[in-house]
Amino acid sequence: MSDVDGSGPEVFGSSGGRILPVGRTVTIEVPASSANLGPGFDALGVALGLYDTISVTVIASGLELEVSGEGAGQVPEDASHLVAKAVEAGLRAGGVGAPGVRISCTNSIPHSRGLGSSASAAVGGLVAANGLMDGALSTDHLVQLASEFEGHPDNAAASVLGGVVVSWTERSTDGVRYRAVRMEVDPSIVATVLVPSETSSTAQTRGLLPATVPHEDAAFNASRAALMSVALASHPEHLLAATEDRLHQSYRAPALVGTTEWVTRLRERGLAATVSGAGPTVLVLGTGALPADLRELAERQGWTVRDLDIADGARVVATG
Amino acid sequence: MSDVDGSGPEVFGSSGGRILPVGRTVTIEVPASSANLGPGFDALGVALGLYDTISVTVIASGLELEVSGEGAGQVPEDASHLVAKAVEAGLRAGGVGAPGVRISCTNSIPHSRGLGSSASAAVGGLVAANGLMDGALSTDHLVQLASEFEGHPDNAAASVLGGVVVSWTERSTDGVRYRAVRMEVDPSIVATVLVPSETSSTAQTRGLLPATVPHEDAAFNASRAALMSVALASHPEHLLAATEDRLHQSYRAPALVGTTEWVTRLRERGLAATVSGAGPTVLVLGTGALPADLRELAERQGWTVRDLDIADGARVVATG
Repeated sequence: MSDVDGSGPEVFGSSGGRILPVGRTVTIEVPASSANLGPGFDALGVALGLYDTISVTVIASGLELEVSGEGAGQVPEDASHLVAKAVEAGLRAGGVGAPGVRISCTNSIPHSRGLGSSASAAVGGLVAANGLMDGALSTDHLVQLASEFEGHPDNAAASVLGGVVVSWTERSTDGVRYRAVRMEVDPSIVATVLVPSETSSTAQTRGLLPATVPHEDAAFNASRAALMSVALASHPEHLLAATEDRLHQSYRAPALVGTTEWVTRLRERGLAATVSGAGPTVLVLGTGALPADLRELAERQGWTVRDLDIADGARVVATG
Repeated sequence: MSDVDGSGPEVFGSSGGRILPVGRTVTIEVPASSANLGPGFDALGVALGLYDTISVTVIASGLELEVSGEGAGQVPEDASHLVAKAVEAGLRAGGVGAPGVRISCTNSIPHSRGLGSSASAAVGGLVAANGLMDGALSTDHLVQLASEFEGHPDNAAASVLGGVVVSWTERSTDGVRYRAVRMEVDPSIVATVLVPSETSSTAQTRGLLPATVPHEDAAFNASRAALMSVALASHPEHLLAATEDRLHQSYRAPALVGTTEWVTRLRERGLAATVSGAGPTVLVLGTGALPADLRELAERQGWTVRDLDIADGARVVATG
């Protein structure tokens, strides 16, 4: 069935092809992500070691959803419903159907904080479907399908491919093709996120961006985006310069007061801090832990401070 | 003496420090360069295997200049005069003087074609001076001094460091600091240049750039600049997408008609062609030779087509 309320066709996924046997099951882990990384507006993304776990089991009929952790109690209005849609889209893309599915989500990625939770939900559902189909879909196909859910590839590609990803969009008469490639990252680089208790709306902050920018600022971001690849690959000493930005963070600052204060405070201490996606989380990339005084101050102010590995992409952790 | 006409102080370089002995001599090779590489306006540069050779010998007094090859007969008005100024600046930066110098330039880099000949002259003079001083100046110092001659670091840093370089400028109350770092480049990548017989003026083409650009175009170039680093390092199959640009080439097209036609023709054939610097040379980056039909057409139209290695930085080839 195509809808969570049980209406629609009697097969979940593709009705014309192979039907998965009842009892088949898969469990996947999908990482959070942070987009932009300063200069790479809508282009750069990093997978972060904070995971949602999704189990999908083929059942005799219907759609059953269980959500625990982040987003629990908000089903089916939010990202968890998106997981069901993504499972179905994945099955359909593989030409496979299921008489019904039970989906169980154990979520650690906070919602509406700039950590790509909706992209992770879409990627997770697709990767789970792909696991049920023994990996019928290529990584490129998963990037395409997940980005179609999002409308942009930066977070989705990071959660599929892992590591740091540069993504772009090719438009032609054949439609929109989302592309992405994973970069080399120096293994000494780690991430710290400062997550506030309040949420933010991407749609709202996106409205704050200007229609035009000075040519000088455009050239500035291009230089820093090029430098970012080099800093990540082999020159972490240049991460502070490489994460400078003139295209989005200053324009959104009025809607992100606390976030902007922290980005400024951290950068003044020489730390490569940026707004994570459209905020309000702050992302810090570096080669060491956050100084204790800054960590304590943030925690006293109610921020959750987490040190996170740069993660691999979503992966199947169990099948049956 | 600080001027080519023989006026000024009686020591060439620094009068307060060590004086180089008459007869000391150095020969250096300095590569050409191409800036921008599509999306990296004023930021990316590549050193190309086309070299000017400069010999500097300490003599008893005065300044003697000899130029053969490109620029011969145009001394002292052009880049060769710049070589003398750069030799002197290099000696002064090292706290070293010479009673006089003879400078001999054998030039292969065509002038005013977008191949960085003036940056090569500045870098060549500085590296020659540094050779006379047994390498007293660091590479960073050479980038700084050469970029000061140019007013921007993209070509100069490429000719100092070699390979592909991302450069940027840091402004503070201490002044302007030019920074650059060399990127990893896949050894399969080669360059082809199409050099027209006519020259171009950077100052003129720079005037064609707009004060502001659409935010979307700024984000576009940031994504391609980030991708460029990855394409060069390990994904040459993405060079065509990575060299897309919306910040300068289309704006300068009216002043670069033949160049623009060739960039378009090459790109339609899937080749990563860009305007070299401010033109009029066309740069193609790829993993193979130019198709024979395109090479023949360009040559019939009067373009000089050259396959060039990506070069190392300027280096001392002989001392005495």
